[in-house]
This record gives sequence, C-alpha cells and structure tokens, in this order.
Amino acid sequence: MQKLPGFRDFLPDDCAVRNYIFARWREVARRYGFVEWEGPILEPTELYKKKSGSEIVDQLFNFTDKGEREVAMRPELTPTLARVVAAHEREFKKPLKWFSIGRFFRFEKQQRGRLREHFQLNCDIIGETALAADIELLALCIDLLRAFGLTENDVVVRISDREFWTDFLRERNVPADRWDNLLQVIDKFGRESREKTIEKLGELADLVLKVLSEGGKSEKLDRLVDGLRDRGLAEFVDIDVRIVRGLAYYTGIVFELFDRAGNLRAIAGGGRYDNLIQQLSDDAVSMPALGFAMGDVVLGEVVNETPHALKQMQQAIAAERKIDIYVVIAKEKHRADALAQIQQLRDHGYRVDYPLTPTKVARQFQAAEDGGASLALLYGDEWPQVKVKNLTTREESLIPNKALLDSVAKFFNVPDSA
Amino acid sequence: MQKLPGFRDFLPDDCAVRNYIFARWREVARRYGFVEWEGPILEPTELYKKKSGSEIVDQLFNFTDKGEREVAMRPELTPTLARVVAAHEREFKKPLKWFSIGRFFRFEKQQRGRLREHFQLNCDIIGETALAADIELLALCIDLLRAFGLTENDVVVRISDREFWTDFLRERNVPADRWDNLLQVIDKFGRESREKTIEKLGELADLVLKVLSEGGKSEKLDRLVDGLRDRGLAEFVDIDVRIVRGLAYYTGIVFELFDRAGNLRAIAGGGRYDNLIQQLSDDAVSMPALGFAMGDVVLGEVVNETPHALKQMQQAIAAERKIDIYVVIAKEKHRADALAQIQQLRDHGYRVDYPLTPTKVARQFQAAEDGGASLALLYGDEWPQVKVKNLTTREESLIPNKALLDSVAKFFNVPDSA
Repeated sequence: MQKLPGFRDFLPDDCAVRNYIFARWREVARRYGFVEWEGPILEPTELYKKKSGSEIVDQLFNFTDKGEREVAMRPELTPTLARVVAAHEREFKKPLKWFSIGRFFRFEKQQRGRLREHFQLNCDIIGETALAADIELLALCIDLLRAFGLTENDVVVRISDREFWTDFLRERNVPADRWDNLLQVIDKFGRESREKTIEKLGELADLVLKVLSEGGKSEKLDRLVDGLRDRGLAEFVDIDVRIVRGLAYYTGIVFELFDRAGNLRAIAGGGRYDNLIQQLSDDAVSMPALGFAMGDVVLGEVVNETPHALKQMQQAIAAERKIDIYVVIAKEKHRADALAQIQQLRDHGYRVDYPLTPTKVARQFQAAEDGGASLALLYGDEWPQVKVKNLTTREESLIPNKALLDSVAKFFNVPDSA
Repeated sequence: MQKLPGFRDFLPDDCAVRNYIFARWREVARRYGFVEWEGPILEPTELYKKKSGSEIVDQLFNFTDKGEREVAMRPELTPTLARVVAAHEREFKKPLKWFSIGRFFRFEKQQRGRLREHFQLNCDIIGETALAADIELLALCIDLLRAFGLTENDVVVRISDREFWTDFLRERNVPADRWDNLLQVIDKFGRESREKTIEKLGELADLVLKVLSEGGKSEKLDRLVDGLRDRGLAEFVDIDVRIVRGLAYYTGIVFELFDRAGNLRAIAGGGRYDNLIQQLSDDAVSMPALGFAMGDVVLGEVVNETPHALKQMQQAIAAERKIDIYVVIAKEKHRADALAQIQQLRDHGYRVDYPLTPTKVARQFQAAEDGGASLALLYGDEWPQVKVKNLTTREESLIPNKALLDSVAKFFNVPDSA
C-alpha cells in the first residue's frame, strides 16, 4: 500500500522542518500585527470557477459528494477569503491584516517544487487603498524570508505594477478590451518565442519590447522602493515590469519572490486585487485588497540550498526537539518513586522521558543522549537521594528527592513561581 | 456563496481557540517525549476498506481522481500510521512515541459534537507490549485534559479490557468465531433495548448482564489503575467493562473519555491494537501498538461548559493575541523615522503595529488599546526624542530615539543580548 503520487508523508524529521517553517511564518506575521484565521479544505467548486473560469476545474481535486454537491479540495485561499470577508466584514475594523497557514491541493503533473498537496502561508490586507499597505505587505514578505536567515544575496523580490502597463496602453489608445490579452503576452515574455510575442503584440511590438528590455519608469514603483528603503529593505527589491502575473484579477502592484540564483520556481507571489471581493461576492461588498501566498515546497528547497539558512534551521530543529530530562531507573524497586517524580516534572512543563520496561543503565543513558536530554536523574541505591547528572559537563551530584524540583528549576533557570 | 454544511470557517476568534487547543496538545505530548509526524489528507480508498470493511465507504468523502485512482479524504489516521510504520520502522528505535495534529473528514449527518471536518490529535506508542505503555498513554490522555484546566470533577476516563471479555468467553467455552458479535452486543448495551440484548446474548444473557451491572474483576485493570495512582491520576479513572469500543481491531485495554456530567459525546477514545499493523501491511511487519484520538469539537464544548477551563482559555488567548507596541505617528513628517524604528523593533521580535495612513492621534491610541499593546511610542514634536507611554500605568517618559531599543528591552524584561 503506497501513498498517492504528489503527496507527502511527514516523518518526524520532515515534520520538524514543516514546523520550523510554520513557526517562522507565524512569528513574523504576528510581529506585523497580522491575526490568524483559516477556512475549510473543501468548498463548492463554483467558488473557484467564479474566480478563475471553468478551465480551473482541470487542475482541481473535485468531485460530487454523497449529498450531490459539486465540491473541490481548495487550490488556493483567496476565494474563501472573499467569501468570509463578504459575510463578516462589518464585524471588524478596517484594514484587516489576516494570515492563514494551511493545506492546498492541485491535480497537476508532479515536478520540482510542485506537488499535488502543499502547505501555504497566505497574508492579506483588506480595506486599504494606500500604497503604504503595499509597502507593509512587501516588507512582511521580505521579513518572512529574513527570518529563515535568507539575505538580499540569496533572494530577490521582483516588483511591477499592472497600472504601469494599463496606463501605457491607455496612453497609446489601445482599446481596453485588448488589455488582458496583451498583459498575457507580456506575462509569457521569455517563455514564448520572440516571433510569437512580436506577432501577438502587433503594432505595439517595438514599443513594448523596448520597455521590456530597457525597463520602465514608474513614479509609484519608485515610491514603493523608497518606502522599503526607509526600512532598510530596498536591497531585496528589483523593479521588473516584465512581471505582470498571469491572473486577470490583479489591479495594481504585483510581485514575485525568487532565489537570486534563479534555479527554482517562485517562492511567493502576490499583489493588489481591488475588485475581486466585489466580483466574488456578487457586488455585495466592495473592498480593496492585496495579498500574497508563500508555499512550503520551494521555500524548503531555497533553505536547503543556502548553507547559512540550512545551518540555522538545523540548529533550531535540534534545539526544539530536545527533551529536557531523562529519568534513569537503575533499580526497578524505585520505579514507582521515579514515576511520581516524572509526573511532577512534567506537570512543571519539563519534557521528560524514561524507559517503559526494565532496561540496562548504559542503554538508558544512551537513550538520554539520543533524546538530547540536558539532565539525567538516576533512581537507584542512592534513594531517597537522586543522582543528578549534567549531560553536557558530565558533572554529577546527589540531591535529596524532596529538593529535586528546586534543583532542576535552578538548572533550567526557571524563575521561582512563588 | 455559502460554505459547505458540516465545515467551519475559523474567523480570528475561532482560530485563536483552535490554536489554543493545538498548543496545549503539542506542549503536553512533547512533555511525554512524543515526537510529531503527519500524513497526507488524501489516501487510496482501499486503505480504509482494508481496515474497516467496505461499509466505511458510505461515511467517506471519496471519489475517483483525474488519474482514475480511487481516493478518499482521510476519516482517521491509524491506517496511514500503519502504512508509514510498515515502510519505515527499521529507521527508528522502538518503542516509537508519535503524535500528530491534523484534519479529518467524514460524510455524515451533522449533529452536536460531530461535524464533517474536524481536527484531531492522535497519539500512538508502537513496538511495546508491556502494560507500562498503556499506563503511559492513559496518563498522557489525562494530562492533555488537565492542561486545559479540567479536573477529575470535570472529566472521567472509562477503562476496560477486551481481554477481560475474551477470557470470560473462552472460560465459558464460547467458540472464538462468536466473540466479535458478542462484543458488539456488549458495545451497544444501554443503546439497544434490553430485550434485544438478551435475545442476542442467548444462553450467556444472565451471566453477561450480571457483569455489566455489577462490574468485573480484572487483575490487569487493577494494575493499570495502580500505575495511574503512582502518578496521582487515579481519580480520573473508572473501570467500566461496558466499554469495549465497537471496532473489531482492538485487542487489549480500551478507553473512552467523557465529561463527568455525561452531556456530551466522547472527548477521546483509544486502546491497544496489537494486530492491526500486521493486517494493514499484509503481514510485512508485525508490531504491537496502542493509541488514541482526541477531536477538537467535543473538547471545545467541554471547555466552554466548564467555567474555570473557559476562563483559563480566555486569559491565555487574550495574552497570546496582544501586540507589544503601538507606534503613534503624531506628525506625518516623522513617519519615515517611525518606520525605520518599527522595522528595528520587529527585527528584535516585538509585535508592532502602526497606522498605515495619516490618522488622528486619539484614534491611534484607541487602536493601541484594541490591539492590547503594552507600550505606545509617539513620534511627534518631541523628535529626536520619542514619547513612551506605558498603557497600563499611563506613565509617560521622553526617551532619545537612539536609546529607545534599550529602553523597550528593559520594559519587556528582555535579557541583554550582548
């Protein structure tokens, strides 16, 4: 019996990596005053069709449930966000700064950095049109990566503005109904053949190609970078008007995060989508919004390929997994005494392990090492004293059972609760 | 556009409750030396049929995927555990003590305490036959509830032993092929009519009903309770041989946790399943095992209905959500200075919020209160000094910008990192 292709088992080592990623995500989002929320894994398929058109269904894990409902395992969070915000926005002061960490599913070919099931962080600001919100969101996105030890030499945010292009097209009197198609062509620039791009751009080819190769001038993008410079984050950013993001619903600033080496898929992507909540709520609620998503798969690869980030992760995981204390039961007649103490230690929050069955003392000390314990407590002939061994310094001392808890608290530097 | 019936949106208040539950679960499991793992949400439907028979399919969210695979959204974790352990057991020293927190799905009628999607903690010990493992697992289960402030007056673990009944039947020369059916009848005792129970039990009716009403004597169950008494947890436990748990794969100790008032469904349930890994792995791996699952829905109800547990949760959530610092931008010309400082404070791990756009000072202080900030930093005419306001005592002081970080660290009692 095998797991399904594109799905992952998280054995303890893998789960520790996942938890490390989640902890950084949560910690940084909280520093920015973002609050956590979450939606269901299963939603009506219609919710995704409404946002992305019926082509999206080819990429979904969707089915008819036993109540004859058309349902889909969520491929992304934004439609759920729009549904929830439309239903509850009156309960909250604007702007909302919300984040969510959860699982997402896409039926597609497995490839590097792309699985059928992955975890994603979503961060959104809702109800604020000012560019300050775009800057805040970008700063968060950059600081999320900095929390993994990644620097401006490791990663880059490529920033663009849909309005740069819509202004460009408007100034050249290109009819608005051609804009979406032209933006798609720009989005595919470098991935499609130059001939095809030129053909599709038609009379605009020379002009557009000039901007794509030389870059564009945008006062808004300059202000954005200035805002990041105020925070010391400008080195992470490249203005790159070739980024338009394929999805039609973006309305302003858009961005994608990549490894500097350019070996991997995007680590994160997002932008402003001021009309989407209105569209998805059937005009019930109109609300400017912007957000991004960051997946665990590519991020994990970037960390793995960046030695200083990898080292930071390994150290954090090693520290996080350690037990505090291993109780060595040297004489079985003291097992009940040991268990009473173990219960007391655990009640005080220490991570304590011990052998479930009679075990040679040397093997117990091995288990203490394997678990990363800082202290071993030995219950044997010394009873009612307990032998306390500092597993780092190898120092040993005999402590009366009744004084043990204080002694342990002192060792772990726990402030007196009295 | 509505969410599906039986599924939940976790708005920030709901998500805070969920996170509170997860944090307690994770913390206590770690104290017991359990390590975290996780499996996929989607598995081959066959995995569940193999364990529970094809009737299970009626209760699944199952479908044929676009690769013509029969797949199901997992209703429980044990089959995945068996699959993973069978594939990887050589990589780990036994016993394994593993826990997992994730989402599970059942297509069934919504009712109180029972949704179509819920979160569940699973804790399992694998590779240990000794009763000490059953005691350790039960102690964990009890301590998980104690971590929510629940006492022996609020909750009870009803413990039984499948072997008590199989021994009973063996001694009375009941053929082994009738045991499963008889255990099902005992499982349904009190939920089926007495007449039906008597009819189904046949010649055993008098004897079995006597045991069910008077209780049974079991040396193993007594040792189990003694083991919990060593840890001071015996008051949480009732021996109750009426518990057999419907599922055929349990082989020894079984238990269920309930609210003492008896108003709610089981909070958790589990037991020993020594043959299941062998069965699910097609005899590839034989491994004794035991475990339990605890859902978030009934647990949440118990906490809600227990005033001291509810108060503990509310206090923990209020403390957890607080931001540390609100930066009041009183003069817009100091916004860039404020932003540089905000970045610095966030880099040091503080949770900092501020107004994205020009905002009246009184409204900014209101936002500081709403966010639960301990400190407000005001950037205005005092610059390059910053007005620091302790929002608890209302004390104010002027601190030079360059000394601000030290001053804040002192306030929050952060040890000098130098």
